[in-house]
Amino acid sequence: MKQIISMLVENHAGVLSRISGLFSRRDFNIDSLAVGVTDDPTVSRITIIVNGDESTVEQVEKQLNKLVDVIKLRRLNPPETTARELLLIKIKCDAKTRGEIIDVARVMNANIVDLSPSTMTIEMTARPSRIDMTLELLRSYGILEVARTGTIAMQKGPSTL
Amino acid sequence: MKQIISMLVENHAGVLSRISGLFSRRDFNIDSLAVGVTDDPTVSRITIIVNGDESTVEQVEKQLNKLVDVIKLRRLNPPETTARELLLIKIKCDAKTRGEIIDVARVMNANIVDLSPSTMTIEMTARPSRIDMTLELLRSYGILEVARTGTIAMQKGPSTL
Repeated sequence: MKQIISMLVENHAGVLSRISGLFSRRDFNIDSLAVGVTDDPTVSRITIIVNGDESTVEQVEKQLNKLVDVIKLRRLNPPETTARELLLIKIKCDAKTRGEIIDVARVMNANIVDLSPSTMTIEMTARPSRIDMTLELLRSYGILEVARTGTIAMQKGPSTL
Repeated sequence: MKQIISMLVENHAGVLSRISGLFSRRDFNIDSLAVGVTDDPTVSRITIIVNGDESTVEQVEKQLNKLVDVIKLRRLNPPETTARELLLIKIKCDAKTRGEIIDVARVMNANIVDLSPSTMTIEMTARPSRIDMTLELLRSYGILEVARTGTIAMQKGPSTL
């Protein structure tokens, strides 16, 4: 089962290395990890998507909580959470297929950000499952490059971390 | 000066730990780091934004290229690059300020993804400088929570990494 762990951590380079080291030492499967500064430049927010059963994820939470750089940690409940990921994708395209790809982009609420005679680059922000669906829809045209950010997440309603 | 380094790396947990360790050991200032899988599940793409002069960044590139997990590395030239970041932000809001915040969101091409009687959550994808500008515009309403993904980037036109 996919679990979302959201953390506030001290913003220095060593933190990311310690956190990712903790996962690699335990051979623990991370689906994605996203890190960005918050409105307080001394604090970063890290979102980790892990795939594992209850007891394994609990163990990971305990280990993360032991790190002095971790200010706050919370597991988010998916139905009460807004989760989003950003995708940039470059696809092969010619005059014939251009219209078809534009149709897919429109339906998936994606934006065309660059066009050349033989390629198109699309930007899309959505729930991770919709990003995967879009990749499936575009695969047959020829995917040249993909860049994804990893998932970030926030509780719905007024609650904060 | 801000530099964009884009890399394809082997997709296992140890890679992120080695790369972030390389930066922290050298006390090197990373502005942002984003990691996501590519269309090939064995390969991840990492985008790093670093702040430094030419010689320092060259040194970092050399060190990164030495890591066996790094398949390909390229410094991207900002004018020829599409760079995007995703922001989720929760702001204080009441019936009086709601309209003002909706106006800002509309102008900045941001989407309102959640609303409660006292808060609003906004999702926005843009160049990092526009994300910073939006944070400035919203600060006076009271920022409750910020989650950013870090920047991802892709060369304009048909070239690929």
